[in-house]
Amino acid sequence: MTQYANRSIVLAARPQGAPTPQDFRLQQGTAPEPAEGQVLLRTLYLSLDPYMRGRMNEGAAYAPPLALGSVMVGGTVSRVVASRHPRFREGELVLGASGWQDYALSDGADLTPLGDIARPSYALSVLGMPGFAAYHGLLHIGQPRAGETVVVGAASGAVGAVVGQIARIKGARVVGIAGGADKCAYVVDELGFDACVDRNDPRFAALLAAACPDGIDVYFENVGGAVFDAVLPLLNDNARVPVCGFIAHYNERELPPGPNRVPLLMATLLNKRVRMQGFIILDHYADGYAAFQRDMGAWVAEGSVKLREDLTDGLEHAPRALIGLLEGRNFGKVVVRVAE
Amino acid sequence: MTQYANRSIVLAARPQGAPTPQDFRLQQGTAPEPAEGQVLLRTLYLSLDPYMRGRMNEGAAYAPPLALGSVMVGGTVSRVVASRHPRFREGELVLGASGWQDYALSDGADLTPLGDIARPSYALSVLGMPGFAAYHGLLHIGQPRAGETVVVGAASGAVGAVVGQIARIKGARVVGIAGGADKCAYVVDELGFDACVDRNDPRFAALLAAACPDGIDVYFENVGGAVFDAVLPLLNDNARVPVCGFIAHYNERELPPGPNRVPLLMATLLNKRVRMQGFIILDHYADGYAAFQRDMGAWVAEGSVKLREDLTDGLEHAPRALIGLLEGRNFGKVVVRVAE
Repeated sequence: MTQYANRSIVLAARPQGAPTPQDFRLQQGTAPEPAEGQVLLRTLYLSLDPYMRGRMNEGAAYAPPLALGSVMVGGTVSRVVASRHPRFREGELVLGASGWQDYALSDGADLTPLGDIARPSYALSVLGMPGFAAYHGLLHIGQPRAGETVVVGAASGAVGAVVGQIARIKGARVVGIAGGADKCAYVVDELGFDACVDRNDPRFAALLAAACPDGIDVYFENVGGAVFDAVLPLLNDNARVPVCGFIAHYNERELPPGPNRVPLLMATLLNKRVRMQGFIILDHYADGYAAFQRDMGAWVAEGSVKLREDLTDGLEHAPRALIGLLEGRNFGKVVVRVAE
Repeated sequence: MTQYANRSIVLAARPQGAPTPQDFRLQQGTAPEPAEGQVLLRTLYLSLDPYMRGRMNEGAAYAPPLALGSVMVGGTVSRVVASRHPRFREGELVLGASGWQDYALSDGADLTPLGDIARPSYALSVLGMPGFAAYHGLLHIGQPRAGETVVVGAASGAVGAVVGQIARIKGARVVGIAGGADKCAYVVDELGFDACVDRNDPRFAALLAAACPDGIDVYFENVGGAVFDAVLPLLNDNARVPVCGFIAHYNERELPPGPNRVPLLMATLLNKRVRMQGFIILDHYADGYAAFQRDMGAWVAEGSVKLREDLTDGLEHAPRALIGLLEGRNFGKVVVRVAE
């Protein structure tokens, strides 16, 4: 069989605070050969997502931590380059989880054939895990009704952009929060949000309040920090807060300084009868993925949901791209183009 | 008509931190006479409850603040002493909201006839607002299943005691938290909880963990503070946290010192897929009170739900009793016996 050079990026050290390039290591190797029932995959696109920061830590969260020296995990779009599996043929595109490497083996159980998908990288965003997280969290926990106000942070990012576009489809008034005037302009002009507030503006809290004259009925939490603090006093009675993530805290080595705002959060939950609920999208594939695929496929086809991608060329630049994502320096869904 | 001397206790000053006797003022007056369609009520029992502390503050929470000089609010069991209302006859007992005074007028809209109730003061606790809060919060938000672990704070208090007894009826394993060995003994020996942990014990967090070997599936939040901090790491996947109150914080003048534990709470909600939901029981009378009355009436009649009362004799001692309640010095439901 053909021998392929295989590069992989492994976790070299556990980050102390923000990851640095030294926390990653590029390894050179040779792609393995598929056994009977396996396929060899060539990575075309690698998805970079905020959850990856948590997997680099020592303590287990909802998934066990990544061992030092392991290949960084991640969703991928790949081409089957060799198949000894009856369901997959050479040349076809699949969605999988090869992680940060050029080649990987699979027994097919974790692969989804992509068929003639118009834009394969969308399988990592709008049509994939981030899109499903946005769809499930907004519709099943947030439950926006027409005319309500929905607020979402990281509004030009993979999850936030989709949350806002679905909320618009459902008839809500949608206010985004994003870091910078260019992102805010994109969110309003291209994605059709009703408003977007720049979280870097020193008047941020006042601007958010002004953008939500009727308060906030659904806050899709994927940011935390100062954004959450500004949202809290604006929540309406019976507001819903799906908790999908909180990127503002992922690089923190310890809890931020006081005061302890938990009593204020509790008082708000009580006085406003707020429901706040965390979810991990991996739990919901069995029950909810089919409905998501059907709805989102239609919305993407008709052009009512779209997403800007922030493409980085070359696997070797994946660490830098993840570091930038965690600092909010990306503009759109972060995807590494590993091969054509 | 007979003229009745009427004492009332008004809000004299807004408490700075814990209320003091100087924040209340006893006023002497004369009971008003009922007009056509009104009744004059003689207060027999006055309920004291933690929510009253919030009503003494300036800022509005779920209800407008009490004006300075106003009679302190509160649920009451009263006898009708004069009636010009077709639905009420002199001598009958009613549940109402006369507040902290000997006599009050009512047009009947806020009154519930108590009929031949065996223990009238129970209309202020097990069979009234605290019992309904326990019932609604536990069953509609907490949704305990048989075999799950339910934890509740202030377990010898009006709400906590009822939460635990209902959870036992539903087949859950119930762990109470209370302040002191005597309260813990009562909670286990008299109320039938499976265990109770003394929150004043220096090993509290470790003892709670030991009492919950299978983690916590439902935490009924009515305490906050160090109790909530100890509960947080024990929550299981898909735990539910009804938020009914947080007496530990009611007397705080400002947020407690850091670190800010909100990111830890967020991480727990996310990683454990926790649902946390505040509720105000006043919202649920129209939809849920009938079912509560039916179920709780049966449980009390058969002896499967009961409650110790902490009786104070004399309206003039109500301020001291409320101050003690907010410091956890009561043992059972706090009721002021205003008249026989």
